[in-house]
Amino acid sequence: MGGDHGPSVMIPGVARSLEKLPPHVRFLLHGDEAAVNAEVARCKGLAGRVEVRPAERVIGMDEKPAQALRRGKGSSMWNAIEAVKAGEAAAAVSAGNTGALMAVSRLILRMSAEMDRPPLVVSAPTLKGVTTFLDAGANVDCDAHRLVEFAILGEAFHSAVHKIDRPSIGLLNVGSEDMKGHQEVREAHRILREGNLDLNYFGFVEGDDLARGKVDVVVTDGFTGNVALKAMEGAAAFMRAELMKAFTSSWNASLGAALARPALRAFRDRISPAPAAPLLGLNGVVVKTHGSADQRDVAKTIAVAVDLAQSDFAAEVERNMRKLPAAIAESMEPPE
Amino acid sequence: MGGDHGPSVMIPGVARSLEKLPPHVRFLLHGDEAAVNAEVARCKGLAGRVEVRPAERVIGMDEKPAQALRRGKGSSMWNAIEAVKAGEAAAAVSAGNTGALMAVSRLILRMSAEMDRPPLVVSAPTLKGVTTFLDAGANVDCDAHRLVEFAILGEAFHSAVHKIDRPSIGLLNVGSEDMKGHQEVREAHRILREGNLDLNYFGFVEGDDLARGKVDVVVTDGFTGNVALKAMEGAAAFMRAELMKAFTSSWNASLGAALARPALRAFRDRISPAPAAPLLGLNGVVVKTHGSADQRDVAKTIAVAVDLAQSDFAAEVERNMRKLPAAIAESMEPPE
Repeated sequence: MGGDHGPSVMIPGVARSLEKLPPHVRFLLHGDEAAVNAEVARCKGLAGRVEVRPAERVIGMDEKPAQALRRGKGSSMWNAIEAVKAGEAAAAVSAGNTGALMAVSRLILRMSAEMDRPPLVVSAPTLKGVTTFLDAGANVDCDAHRLVEFAILGEAFHSAVHKIDRPSIGLLNVGSEDMKGHQEVREAHRILREGNLDLNYFGFVEGDDLARGKVDVVVTDGFTGNVALKAMEGAAAFMRAELMKAFTSSWNASLGAALARPALRAFRDRISPAPAAPLLGLNGVVVKTHGSADQRDVAKTIAVAVDLAQSDFAAEVERNMRKLPAAIAESMEPPE
Repeated sequence: MGGDHGPSVMIPGVARSLEKLPPHVRFLLHGDEAAVNAEVARCKGLAGRVEVRPAERVIGMDEKPAQALRRGKGSSMWNAIEAVKAGEAAAAVSAGNTGALMAVSRLILRMSAEMDRPPLVVSAPTLKGVTTFLDAGANVDCDAHRLVEFAILGEAFHSAVHKIDRPSIGLLNVGSEDMKGHQEVREAHRILREGNLDLNYFGFVEGDDLARGKVDVVVTDGFTGNVALKAMEGAAAFMRAELMKAFTSSWNASLGAALARPALRAFRDRISPAPAAPLLGLNGVVVKTHGSADQRDVAKTIAVAVDLAQSDFAAEVERNMRKLPAAIAESMEPPE
């Protein structure tokens, strides 16, 4: 029911996702029965693959998380998460209210790691492919321990979804030498380098390595991550605006732009970030897409949820989380 | 003598700067006498405007700051800063070793503010004009007090160099509400809003407001600032590379690119950051340009140094710095 368009985009998104999913994948569609059924009837190929689960209410896009917790029971979002908890569903997908989704997921599924809330995870395009970037804004204050947890979650996510074996992990800093940066980032660096975790740790990376794709997974605190990601979005918007100005500055340039239009469109698609934002660190798979998602975005988000549910993501996270206390202890011993 | 090209770029840069400077501006050229004189002889219009000051040595581009402090006496960089201290020069300009310039400037001129080292200041192009951004990396750990000092320095710099009366100041954060962000940024927000400083404080801004030009001066700590700035550079490099790929993807697109070339070149110039990086917070004006600066960059950097020296920059900084202790005390009083 969530997002700007509700079932009229979500259900066609489900139909579109089926084209690429294995035949055993089925959907529980939580929401207003009449509205959902009407959309299901309009979409081809859904028969036998979906089951409508009527929900008596919807959590609004502007409800506060606390409100959603108090009054959310029986809503489509609540029921979708409950179905994951009950083992009826392997994953939940939503385009709804982000704060509410996070709060309801934490309440029902509980965090598996020690962190307070799931990091925001972004899959961003780079010159070499795609980088998993976290935390993009959920946890503003992060100690070293928290940063290492992000590395564990990011690694398991990247290998499950982007199908890279032993993805490389970088810790965002202002330089590459061991002594650079503040205490938290230096301590996390020591744990990742010296602790006996099963991770392919590269070391420190810098801001420009994000778009360059120097590593597969970039780890940072939610303050720096939020600012960096928005700064890049702002830079991209600025360049687009300036480019359009340049292209309309003369008759020749306009003709040039017309001839180059398909290439420019491919360029725009290339630099768009992936629409799926998983809520990692929960005991269960929940993946969010943005409110303005279109059918394609919904289908891509579903594919990510299926990848997470079918991979050994959860087992891999658990394996490394168990090693974490020892890794922290090791990193504190004086070097021989 | 500094930068990748030494006098062969610095001296023509001086000559070029004279075209736009008032006739009373004169230059002391510190460096190897023969090399500097040879370049002076080749450039027109320098007669009567320059005086060569022979220096017996040069601080290398890869010397450590500590080394520069120990052995830098009598070098061209050292003498240029000494001339500012002695009141012989109103400002020093260098394309040399940044770490050495900072260390030598601090030793000779001393900091005027309480900070340990000058913030790195960047003038970045935006959709609306130019934004002054600090700290871009010199002070990794910043408490609230330090952030407010940056606001004071950035404001005086922006009004002196970009000729904006009462420039607006934003504090970089992950959202615009008072409760957003970590403790340091919330406390600085309170001092800037409630303290009786002579500043046009806008409030919190976010990462994408940087390129958008929402405010004239953006203040942040050196960790976040360094990452954000490099992330934007990386995003710009990524977009350029993708654009070139798009433009060579078909015959039509290549023709389009050829027709649009002048517009694209204008675009590249538009998004290049300004070459002048002032070292603020010293008792004297020192402005750095990058090692790969060309003549135009050197001339622009000189213009910034002249603007700082001729404006009431120093007086404006001092006026607000004197009000700072009271502003901090005020912001700590409970609201009525």
